Order: sequence, then C-alpha cells, then structure tokens
Amino acid sequence: MAELNTPYRLASKTPDKQQTVVTVRNSTIGGNELFMIAGPCAVESERQLFEIAGAVHAAGVPFLRGGAFKPRTSPYNFQGLEKEGLRLLKQASDTYGLGIITEVMDFSLLDLVYPYTDIIQVGSRNMKNYHFLKELGKTDKPILLKRGMDATVDEWLLAAEYILLGGNDQVILCERGIRTFDQSLRNTLDLGSVALVKELSHLPIVVDPSQGTGKRSVVGAMSKAAVAVGADGLMIEVHNDPDSALSDGPQSLSLDQFRKLMKELAVLSTVTGKRFKSKTLEMIDA
Amino acid sequence: MAELNTPYRLASKTPDKQQTVVTVRNSTIGGNELFMIAGPCAVESERQLFEIAGAVHAAGVPFLRGGAFKPRTSPYNFQGLEKEGLRLLKQASDTYGLGIITEVMDFSLLDLVYPYTDIIQVGSRNMKNYHFLKELGKTDKPILLKRGMDATVDEWLLAAEYILLGGNDQVILCERGIRTFDQSLRNTLDLGSVALVKELSHLPIVVDPSQGTGKRSVVGAMSKAAVAVGADGLMIEVHNDPDSALSDGPQSLSLDQFRKLMKELAVLSTVTGKRFKSKTLEMIDA
Amino acid sequence: MAELNTPYRLASKTPDKQQTVVTVRNSTIGGNELFMIAGPCAVESERQLFEIAGAVHAAGVPFLRGGAFKPRTSPYNFQGLEKEGLRLLKQASDTYGLGIITEVMDFSLLDLVYPYTDIIQVGSRNMKNYHFLKELGKTDKPILLKRGMDATVDEWLLAAEYILLGGNDQVILCERGIRTFDQSLRNTLDLGSVALVKELSHLPIVVDPSQGTGKRSVVGAMSKAAVAVGADGLMIEVHNDPDSALSDGPQSLSLDQFRKLMKELAVLSTVTGKRFKSKTLEMIDA
Amino acid sequence: MAELNTPYRLASKTPDKQQTVVTVRNSTIGGNELFMIAGPCAVESERQLFEIAGAVHAAGVPFLRGGAFKPRTSPYNFQGLEKEGLRLLKQASDTYGLGIITEVMDFSLLDLVYPYTDIIQVGSRNMKNYHFLKELGKTDKPILLKRGMDATVDEWLLAAEYILLGGNDQVILCERGIRTFDQSLRNTLDLGSVALVKELSHLPIVVDPSQGTGKRSVVGAMSKAAVAVGADGLMIEVHNDPDSALSDGPQSLSLDQFRKLMKELAVLSTVTGKRFKSKTLEMIDA
Repeated sequence: MAELNTPYRLASKTPDKQQTVVTVRNSTIGGNELFMIAGPCAVESERQLFEIAGAVHAAGVPFLRGGAFKPRTSPYNFQGLEKEGLRLLKQASDTYGLGIITEVMDFSLLDLVYPYTDIIQVGSRNMKNYHFLKELGKTDKPILLKRGMDATVDEWLLAAEYILLGGNDQVILCERGIRTFDQSLRNTLDLGSVALVKELSHLPIVVDPSQGTGKRSVVGAMSKAAVAVGADGLMIEVHNDPDSALSDGPQSLSLDQFRKLMKELAVLSTVTGKRFKSKTLEMIDA
Repeated sequence: MAELNTPYRLASKTPDKQQTVVTVRNSTIGGNELFMIAGPCAVESERQLFEIAGAVHAAGVPFLRGGAFKPRTSPYNFQGLEKEGLRLLKQASDTYGLGIITEVMDFSLLDLVYPYTDIIQVGSRNMKNYHFLKELGKTDKPILLKRGMDATVDEWLLAAEYILLGGNDQVILCERGIRTFDQSLRNTLDLGSVALVKELSHLPIVVDPSQGTGKRSVVGAMSKAAVAVGADGLMIEVHNDPDSALSDGPQSLSLDQFRKLMKELAVLSTVTGKRFKSKTLEMIDA
Repeated sequence: MAELNTPYRLASKTPDKQQTVVTVRNSTIGGNELFMIAGPCAVESERQLFEIAGAVHAAGVPFLRGGAFKPRTSPYNFQGLEKEGLRLLKQASDTYGLGIITEVMDFSLLDLVYPYTDIIQVGSRNMKNYHFLKELGKTDKPILLKRGMDATVDEWLLAAEYILLGGNDQVILCERGIRTFDQSLRNTLDLGSVALVKELSHLPIVVDPSQGTGKRSVVGAMSKAAVAVGADGLMIEVHNDPDSALSDGPQSLSLDQFRKLMKELAVLSTVTGKRFKSKTLEMIDA
Repeated sequence: MAELNTPYRLASKTPDKQQTVVTVRNSTIGGNELFMIAGPCAVESERQLFEIAGAVHAAGVPFLRGGAFKPRTSPYNFQGLEKEGLRLLKQASDTYGLGIITEVMDFSLLDLVYPYTDIIQVGSRNMKNYHFLKELGKTDKPILLKRGMDATVDEWLLAAEYILLGGNDQVILCERGIRTFDQSLRNTLDLGSVALVKELSHLPIVVDPSQGTGKRSVVGAMSKAAVAVGADGLMIEVHNDPDSALSDGPQSLSLDQFRKLMKELAVLSTVTGKRFKSKTLEMIDA
C-alpha cells in the first residue's frame, strides 16, 4: 500500500519511517522487548490491589493495570472506585515500582486521571470518540488505543491518526477482540489484525487475551498465540480471588495461573521475535 | 419479561407504566403523531442550510437536523463548522419556525451546544460513553439516543437507563442500522429491533433510514417499512445538492425526492398507527 | 450498475429485461399480486397438517408450506416425517386446493421430493451448495431460493445465476434474515436487501418474517414492513398449537393470529404496490 | 460443561473418553505429531500439480491438498478439472508418496471422489448440509470437517456429531475463519475457537490460515499462532506460480515461502506441544 494512497499518512508504514518504539519507565514497547501489563480489571480495595500488585511485580511484570472509572453496560453494576481507585494505583506503583496504565473514559476526566497514570488507556467504547482523540493528541503521555469492538483495522489506524496528527506520537495499539455472531467466547480475538497491523503500520501493538476471550481457561493459549503472531506485548487480567471479583472475574487468571503463564511465555519467547527483558527473566526464574 | 428480571428497570415496559410521550415545540414523539426530522448530514454554509431548511419547512416537517460537530472516521475529512454551524442552525430555526436537533459529541461540548438545540442527539459512536450518558441524565432537554452500530437491543436500553436514572425521562431511541458482514448497504437497518423495542420498552423510537442504508435510492422504501413496523418517527437526510455534499451525499435525498416521499408517507400513514399532524398534512397538500 | 459490470448477467435488471413473473397454480409472484405462503415449519401428523391447511385455505392463502425433511442443528432433534410428510402434503393439497412448497435438502433427495411439490425450496444452509444449484437449473419447477444466513446480496444473486444459467428461469428469492452479533431475535431480518434486490434484479422476492425473527409477537409487524418495502410476497409459519410444535413453535403464529394478520395485510395493501388476489380478499372478508 | 448437558454427546470431551487420534498413511492427527497438509487451492494441470506436489514432498509434508470440484461464488469462475483433477491427484500421490485430501461438494459426488482420496474434506459451505453429514457417517475414511463461515463452535461440534452418530469416528475439525464485519482480511481466523474446541471436545483440530486470511503475507504469522494455540496441524495453500493461479492465488504461498515457513515451524514446535515427525524434520534439514 503506497503512502499516498493510505488514508492514515502518519500511522502507515513507509520505507522512510522507523518502527515506533515507545519508552516508558525503563520499558520499551515496539522494540525487542516482550512488554507485559497485568492487574485486575477494576481496582476494588487496597488489600485486593496490593496483593495483586505484589504478585505482578514478583512475576517480573513492569506495568500494573487497573480500572478506577469503569465503563459498564449496566448502570447498576460496579462503576469503579473513581478517585480513590487512582490514589490506590499510585500507592501500589510507589510500593512496587510498577508503571501504571488506567483508562480515561471521557475527555472531561483527563485532567483528573493524568497525574496518576504512565500510559493513558482509551477503551474500546471510546475508540470512535474523535473529539477525545484530538485532545489526547495534545498530551505528552503514551496512549494505549484499544480497538473498537466494531472497528475495522482501517478505522482503528485512522483513530490512531487523530492522536498522531495532534502531535502525540506515542501511540500503542491494543487488539482486544471484536464482536461477531459467535458468542461462544465473549469476543473474537482477531490475531489476524495483529499480523496485518505489523504490515500496515509502524506503531507497536499489544494484545489483551482476557477481554478478547472472556474465559480464563483459554487466556494462556491465546497469550501464546499472540506472542507467536508477533505482538509487542500482552495485557492480562489477574486477580487474587477471581471468583469474587467485582468485574470480569471469569476472564481473570489467578495469581498462580499467571505465574505459570509467565514461565511458559519465557520459554516460548526464546524462539519468537520479542523477549522479556533480563530483569523480568530473573524474577521469573527466582 | 417481568419487571424484576429486566436489567433496565426504568426503561422497561410494565403494566403500571404509560408509554412515554416526549413533547417538544408543539410536536409529540411516542403518541399518535408520526414525527419527522429532516435536514442535511452536516451544516455546510448559510446558503445550503437555509435552502434545505426552507424546503423542509415547506414539506410540513417540524424539526431540522444538521451536524455542527461531525464525528468522521478520518481526521482529514470535513469536521463540521462547529460554533458557526450552531449559529446557523439557530438562525434557520428562527426564520422557519423549525425545532433543532444536533449532535453533542462529547460531554466537554455539552455546554456549548445546549443553548442551540431542542433535542440533544447522542451519536452511534457515543452510545457506550457511559460517563457522558450519566451527565445527560442531569439535563432538561430530550435526548435522541442513537443505537450503537455494535449494540444489542439490551445494551441500547441499558444506555437509555443511564440517562433515565440520572433523572431525565425524555429519551427517544433512534435505530440507525447495525454493522454486519453484509456491506451491500452501508449498514443493516434493523427494523426487527423497532418491533422488539415496542414490546420491551415504553420509550419512543424513531428510525434513520439514511444512515441505516447509506443509499438514497432505498431510503424511501425503508422509510415506509419503518412506518409500517410501528416507528414513532423518521429522521431523514436531505440536501439541496446531494452530489456536492461535504458529507454523506450518497445517502441524502434531493429536495424533490423528499417532498415526494412526504406525500407517499401521508398516504401510507392513513392505514398505520401514527399520522402526520394536521399542520404537516396541510403543507403536504399545499 | 451497468450490465457488463455485473457478475450476475442473467439475474441483473437491465433496460431490456422485463420483471420476472412466476406463475404457478393460478398465482403469480413478481406481478401485482401479493403472494402468500403459510403453514407449519414441519409436517408433524395428519391431524396437525390438515387442521393448519384448512385454516390456511380459509384465510385465502393459495400455498401451503411444510417441511418433510428438516435441516436441524442437532441430530437429536426431530428430523421430519420424510416420505410420509410428503404424502401428507399431497393429500392436504388435494383436499384444500392448495399449492405446495417444501424444501429439498440435497440433490440426492430431488427425485423423491419433485412429484410432491409445486415450488422447490432451497434452504438457507444450501444456498452455497453450487453443485445442487446447477442441477436445479435443469428442473422445470419454480425454485424458492432462501438467502444464506451468511450471504451477501451479491452472493445470493450469484446463487440465483447458477440456476438461471442451467436453464430454469423461475427463480424466486426469499429473504429470511441474516446472522449478526445481535441475537435479541433469532436472525436480523434484512429488509434493506429487499429494496436493494428490487433495484439490482428482475427476480421476484418474498420475505419470511418467521425465520427472520424467531419470535411470534413481532412477525405481524415485520410482515407489514416487508409489504411496505415492496416484497412480492410473504412466507409465514402458522401452527394449530404453536406451544407444542416439534420445531420452531416460538416463531409460529396461531391460526387466530394468522387470520387477524391477513385482515391487516389486506388493509395495508390497499396503499402499497401489491394486492391480494380477489379470491383471497373474498375469503378474508367471509 | 457436564456430559449430560452437552448437546453433542459423542463429540464432547469427558473424563472417560480418550483424545481421538486419527491415523492415516503413517501420519497421526490428534497425537504428538504436528500434521501438515499443503497444496494448491485447485488442481489446474498436470504440470502445476506435479511441480507443487514435488515441492510439498521435498518439504517433508505427508499430505497433498487440491480441489477437483470447486465451490465458487460465481458460475463464471473456474469450477475445477473435476474427474481429470481426481486422476491427477492420484498420480501425484503415487509418484511422491503423498496422502490426498480433496473436497466432496455433495453427497451425489461421494462415490466418484471416494476412491481418489485418503481424507474426505467437507467444505465450509456444506457444514450444515445435514443429509450429507449423515451419509458421511457411513463411510470408513477420515472426514475433515471445515467450520461453516457462519457456524458457532456448538453448531460445528453438532455437525461433527451427525458424522459420529452415523458410525464414523474419524472426524478432524478444521478452523478456516468466520465471516465478520471486518473484511480487511478475507475471513477472521478464529484461533479462540481452537482453544475452546480443545476444552470441549476430544476431536483433533487443524487450522487453515490460507482461507482464514486470504492474504499470503500473513499466512506465516498465523500459522505460527495456530501452532502456539495448540492446533494439531495446518492446511496451507501453496502454488508454483501464485500470481497465475486459477483460484485463490493471493492467499497461496510460493514454494520458496512455504519451505521457509516449514523451517520456522520446525523451530517453533520445539517449544510447543506438537512436533513434526522425524521424517519431516529430516527433509526440512536436508
């Protein structure tokens, strides 16, 4: 696809553009490192978050995820701890030396969330909120742009283009499954999109197999598939007590399951393109 | 579906709840009136808007649509006249006595748009922006809530529930097509959802056959189908020069095509549940 | 769409081709007549079929449907009465003067079914069985070609082209809903496809709102929408005891519901393009 | 999922059932071997088939694919060499010692194709032709059952159940992509289904990344992902001159690309569950 014909001039891969490598808190996304994010779907309590954060850190993972403001289909479901959730994330970050990624649901919440997060997550439901994307182009923190569950690959790259055009070139794409007729699993995790994005764009891309499947027992297999297809990283939901989680328990790994997966990924990554950084490998082996 | 089992307590139809009838500027939506909205996809210029508004008024239509802030897939496409567009809508409203409906793309734009519109439109891409929906629950103007192109009927009614729960009970649903594998037409206009919403909910529902098909030549047939299935109204894109429109020209009716459709709908509605109000019928006959 | 560019040369509408009108047993499909087919999903017993056939006849409907060989998702579900079902259809036809339409599931069953049916139905699951379609092109009976639940409009017209190219020009299309992410209803009945087919092709098209929705309570509304959009006819499932039906009871109308719908369609059709034939109207009024 | 509640009693995994391992011509599918099938989409000529078969053999692949009867969306496209194609497959098999897999499009063609093939392929378009599936249950050759492009995992396993119930327990599932709104690639290859099938069923499952993506440049990455997720094998389209192929050239690997992929898979499989058999490894190393 020639540069002049692509609708996403800045996001497209061209001979004269280098692969984008986002660097944040000693981690890189888009280079040789297999980047890892793990944590609960939502921040629920200090005890929950710290127990998970400790295990995430001990498994060698550099970044903690956790929702403080949660987009929920029903207004009667848990909506997140909001500002208290942000505060807890910050504490966990300070305690364990973890980077933080959390979602900003709306432009009006950006100023509130900004100081608490290292990477700003744009959720699937907001990928087509173009006014918001334009404003994110003016920020100076990396943006993790989840794919809309109804977005084509072109629409996704055009959403990235909105941010790039605003002046922020630290965009990380995140495949998290699309909505199809088959609802055997919560979403259809589209790994073909990862292979295609690697061809079309210089932007790094990570995969969320937890949202992408909704089912704990297949998260490990899909994590490996994502690494094998060439993803730059993974974002995985883990919980200290998945069956009691206030949101998305069925798709969260237990801490033990997660540790086991990290070991398996370390082995797999010896024959694929991206490796865990040495600090991660040391902690996995410990 | 019993009240206690529905996830949308306020939006659901129950024996003790009356059908919601939204009244705005002498029009009703949800009662016996077949409610009509027409106008351009986007406000492009004073001349364009006034020519269309004049024709819309002359055809007996009480409400003018027109986007001032446009959600566009590509940042390189026309993004709307923004504040100038709002000003023009107000002028057209004053000149022709038309009600105004226009989209608010984001909560941060609500205060700006609020004074210019009679009905606040929430676009398909924002139907799952729950933070925004909560804020809309605090406003005192009717909300036209377009269905997300990836939203199930339940998710749509739950989005309405967010607004209702906030205290605003003037919610009008708008079916505008869903995204499916078949892209022969731009979207798949799901009229079954209209029949289903009439069973599940007391909220009024209108249909947008322009977005719902993307193709001018089938808008008339689908408008009639929407009336036959029981919709409370229609929202139709018309343009004085569709082939030069800055957005969505292919789905816009010419002014002549629109006048002809209004006459046909007047005939059809004599045997269906909703009728044009008498003022509309007089103007159609004139 | 110019003739030379269409992939379906025989199925496409061109200035020099007339609308196809299929004539079978005093009924026409594709002309001015609103053509009706009604009957059970499956033939279950003599008593069931005759009770339904009597009511269908009394409502003025010229054609009886009923499956003798049923394509069922599970091998443990009722598979049809097979040859005995065909024999009962023939008896009911003789008794009530009704035309018969029934499905042929596979080429190997064609010779068996052929003598018992006036119109050969190709089911949704077989629309892409091209070997079978070629063989149907050699038969001399009208073919009702249901749309595949995963077929685009182009693919559907190309399936018709296989039959036309074989020499059988009596092809009737049948929209029966497509499979989408929204499973609030069993299928998404795509009435936009009917409007589009009317533009692209000279072939007649009928609508099956029973399969198309899977829900009795919306079949009436969708029948009216189908007539309003311009369909040439309807195929509707009715049952003498829907709640005990061996297949698809939830989408079958009771005999009373069906009679009521026929009266409503007679009224609606006074302002739409197709009318019931006078014999039908007489029986509805009786 | 408990045995008694599953709708597919024979296809479901239960504590007392062993994993099905299909053995055919010295190869096993479902055990420790990573099973490989490669070849052209369609048999086009003796020269084409032998050149490809020679390369497939030289790469250590035990089975040759190639369509003799081709299901094509348009009747104007190449429909296959039919009986001559079968004869050529047999010759290639004899010359190179390759097993053969080819599609049977319809029950009426089964007797013709049977003697020429080692594994009978049921195409995506025929997965719901239940009459045909019943008849396949009576044969004594392994069946490769492609997933319908509109089939849920449950429907797919129920289609397998039809064959198993007929008495043929040699069923191999094949994931080949589903049809979704995103048509950036030809299909959406659903690797989540592979992980899910491994949980639900004891049947072996292979992946077709060629049909599954329609795009040569991503076939390699998706092949690796399929192996990482746990598939029992791969079916890959290769062509001696992909740009001149009579069908599906864009998704076919060149012979060089295929050889390179085999080497990469050999490396990857050292850390995943299935390995190439030693003969394959020897030929890859040669």
